[in-house]
Amino acid sequence: MKAKTEKGVQDVKAVWFEDGRVVMIDQRKLPGRLEFVSFDNYPDVAESIRNMTTRGAPSIGATAAYGMCLAALNGDDLDRAAKDIKAARPTAYDLFYAVDYMVRALGENTDPVEAADSYAQIIIDKCLAIGRYGEPLIKDGAKVMTHCNAGALATVDVGTALAPIRAAHDKGKNIFVYVSETRPRLQGMQLTSWELLQEGIDHAIMPDGASGHFLREGVDLIILGADRIAANGDFANKIGTFEKAVLAKELGVPFYVAAPISTFDFNTPRGEDIKIEYRSEEEMTQISGVRIAPEGARALNPSFDMTPAGYVTGFITEKGILAPNEIRRVLG
Amino acid sequence: MKAKTEKGVQDVKAVWFEDGRVVMIDQRKLPGRLEFVSFDNYPDVAESIRNMTTRGAPSIGATAAYGMCLAALNGDDLDRAAKDIKAARPTAYDLFYAVDYMVRALGENTDPVEAADSYAQIIIDKCLAIGRYGEPLIKDGAKVMTHCNAGALATVDVGTALAPIRAAHDKGKNIFVYVSETRPRLQGMQLTSWELLQEGIDHAIMPDGASGHFLREGVDLIILGADRIAANGDFANKIGTFEKAVLAKELGVPFYVAAPISTFDFNTPRGEDIKIEYRSEEEMTQISGVRIAPEGARALNPSFDMTPAGYVTGFITEKGILAPNEIRRVLG
Repeated sequence: MKAKTEKGVQDVKAVWFEDGRVVMIDQRKLPGRLEFVSFDNYPDVAESIRNMTTRGAPSIGATAAYGMCLAALNGDDLDRAAKDIKAARPTAYDLFYAVDYMVRALGENTDPVEAADSYAQIIIDKCLAIGRYGEPLIKDGAKVMTHCNAGALATVDVGTALAPIRAAHDKGKNIFVYVSETRPRLQGMQLTSWELLQEGIDHAIMPDGASGHFLREGVDLIILGADRIAANGDFANKIGTFEKAVLAKELGVPFYVAAPISTFDFNTPRGEDIKIEYRSEEEMTQISGVRIAPEGARALNPSFDMTPAGYVTGFITEKGILAPNEIRRVLG
Repeated sequence: MKAKTEKGVQDVKAVWFEDGRVVMIDQRKLPGRLEFVSFDNYPDVAESIRNMTTRGAPSIGATAAYGMCLAALNGDDLDRAAKDIKAARPTAYDLFYAVDYMVRALGENTDPVEAADSYAQIIIDKCLAIGRYGEPLIKDGAKVMTHCNAGALATVDVGTALAPIRAAHDKGKNIFVYVSETRPRLQGMQLTSWELLQEGIDHAIMPDGASGHFLREGVDLIILGADRIAANGDFANKIGTFEKAVLAKELGVPFYVAAPISTFDFNTPRGEDIKIEYRSEEEMTQISGVRIAPEGARALNPSFDMTPAGYVTGFITEKGILAPNEIRRVLG
């Protein structure tokens, strides 16, 4: 991804390895400041995962891989390092997967830096493929709507939903992006808008409740990410996704979900089997520690909602665009 | 409306006249503190309208009427007072209407306090009638969803969308209200939730984007207000209303609009004739003066959206519940 730094516009990633150190964007400082931090030992890397210096499942996975790489380079006990890094975010599937990948690679005497770099590159390559497949959907002059942050910050580089948007922009297409602010944590306003600003992609932030208004005014397509896709194509994604799907159907706007194939979960037959996690009320009722809701008021804060497959025009994956009824045949 | 004060739960209004003074809730302090302020001269009342101590078109109208009442009691020049009060919020229709009403009443030598009290009481009586007509729609055990604040704070007392909800609660029905927080200004979270807390009506605040999720989980009906209703039943209301209308249709949830007949505008044939006002970007990009969006990011902040009549189950008015196709016959 591009980032405007003191030295001008540079190509950066959410996390990478350089001169014996793991370097990453401190995502807690965004969108106010772009700051890089770097670490030369795995406990500091584990801490950067724990304290959310880095975020987004694929970026966390790559960070963990680089943490294992440092442990190997420093001659640390690898079993202990694996355990410590896995404990940093106890429910992150990509984190466990990345650590196990590195344990296997190091066991086969692969060079630690090469192994971790190749783990990160696999993620980036999938995003680039999603971008190539999705790019033709975005015509010159198109208006695209997205939600939350399915961008480069979360996936080391490029992003999922933002991959086709970046690719269309890189081809010289003139596009405009409606960015839904994504309450309560405002990842659309604070991360997606920041990424698009760095790339010089024309866009505006809108309140989540304005998607119907702008979809009726004229949007060519919606592209957003997915946290988990059931075998029948029902999928879970950030709260607010289902509303956009229903509006898109009502108003005849194509609705695309961009996600790598690893997001499909064949152990989950249907959307109803996905449990919706509720997060803390404080995410809604406080801003910067100041209460904005009345004292004593309750808030309901579902992280995700479930969108039935019937609303999805297509899933943009690294193997091409799949209609919901093609999932089983192609991937199953 | 009920309000929890130091002296216990009391019956209060948004604005009233007592012992030679206009008393009002300082709505700028809500939901943090309930504070009353009072004024004994019309310039201070005009200032309370200008600086949004009081808000909501009907409450502003009543405040203006009480301002004219003070001008008459104090022997001020009534032409000058009328001009000064009208200038407090230059585009508020109710403000002009209330001042003209008082100029006429005072010209006919009506007692100033009686004239202003009767102006305020007409508003309250309409709200009570909306409550009576709407109450039977809310069954015991019902879950109701609302948006923004169409409550007592805006209408001197009782409210429009909140009138049937208050009436059902007062009848002893066990109800639950989903309150959409209503970004960017959070009137749902900060005003509607505050009103429901005072009355002891069970409710929870949700992100605007969660309405689809909860409507699918099971909501019995949506009731919200309207800013302007065209002759064909298309209507403008707070941004986010159209989305709820589309979701309600898709999920089979009845969708009601509560508004006095004065909200119907027969000079506006259709919704497309209603111009959507855009408000400042700062309402979205800043909270308490602190920028939350990236530097340089643009925001689109439409105040209202337009919902076509076809999505409306009924308009709850002071003359009964009207289907969109009954508007012209009954009111035209």
